[in-house]
Amino acid sequence: MNSDERAAIADEVRRTVRDIPDFPKPGILFRDITPVLANPSLFGKVMVAIASPFERQGITHVVSIESRGFILGAPVALELRAAFVPVRKPGRLPSATVREDYTLEYGTDALEMHADALRGAKGVLVVDDVLATGGTAAATCRLVERAGGKVFACAFMIELAALGGRARLAGTRADSLITY
Amino acid sequence: MNSDERAAIADEVRRTVRDIPDFPKPGILFRDITPVLANPSLFGKVMVAIASPFERQGITHVVSIESRGFILGAPVALELRAAFVPVRKPGRLPSATVREDYTLEYGTDALEMHADALRGAKGVLVVDDVLATGGTAAATCRLVERAGGKVFACAFMIELAALGGRARLAGTRADSLITY
Repeated sequence: MNSDERAAIADEVRRTVRDIPDFPKPGILFRDITPVLANPSLFGKVMVAIASPFERQGITHVVSIESRGFILGAPVALELRAAFVPVRKPGRLPSATVREDYTLEYGTDALEMHADALRGAKGVLVVDDVLATGGTAAATCRLVERAGGKVFACAFMIELAALGGRARLAGTRADSLITY
Repeated sequence: MNSDERAAIADEVRRTVRDIPDFPKPGILFRDITPVLANPSLFGKVMVAIASPFERQGITHVVSIESRGFILGAPVALELRAAFVPVRKPGRLPSATVREDYTLEYGTDALEMHADALRGAKGVLVVDDVLATGGTAAATCRLVERAGGKVFACAFMIELAALGGRARLAGTRADSLITY
């Protein structure tokens, strides 16, 4: 996919994302991706646009973050013929896990990945729908390292630049299809 | 895909699913699908095996249940060129929703779908990873009707027949790739 094609897909995503004011709380403008998912032709193009920079880059594992990340990560993994690895909230993965805590606006949360999920991994691509503050993406990158993997890049459909997530991923390549 | 091919894929899934005793609590044998997702060739075949009975059946929308259902539902929606519609826990979808409560072993839970998600829907396919007691799948079917849609069928990777989920979906076609 060339950069003109990618730009055309980005434009269509921008026109299709639905802005919801005051969600999940007053003053927040939520970027609702469900209209993109509801358009099969656009969803397919978005998936290819996210995956295509990583074709023939040695990606063996796609790691995605519960739960909206799964919607993009699973098709991207299939497109790249890579293993799909879910990162989940604590207590939901049944086998032995590694765990990372991370800071929220108020308090902390944690993510887990199966400890054996990256056995034999060469290149790991982290996929999520939105890069906001970068807290969950950074925690996921640390999880990957803890499980013995190496993050090749993080890929997002949407980046909310004002929230500074890219800075929290310093040193890691981060690709976004569209940026607000 | 013919029935021999489907049976071969089912056999490979059966050999690949990892049994985890006593998860999430003592006495429960958990069928862990993550080794299937970690095998890109098998994951791709599973996705096609789930989707192929519904090719050219007029499926316009694939409805999937948070969060493991998203992992199968999103690729199946892309394969069928159908809209992908997420069903989520309460409070997570940003626009106006319809809601269904359902009974758990102890207490109740609820699911939501965007109220406008099935606008123009003809055939709806409900996709989830596992059919267990059928509570969430039955609630999802009711959500579909409440939003003005019609369930064509439910499709699962795994059915745990002893838990009787199929009976709760009475009147609705239910396809499972493998049955324990």
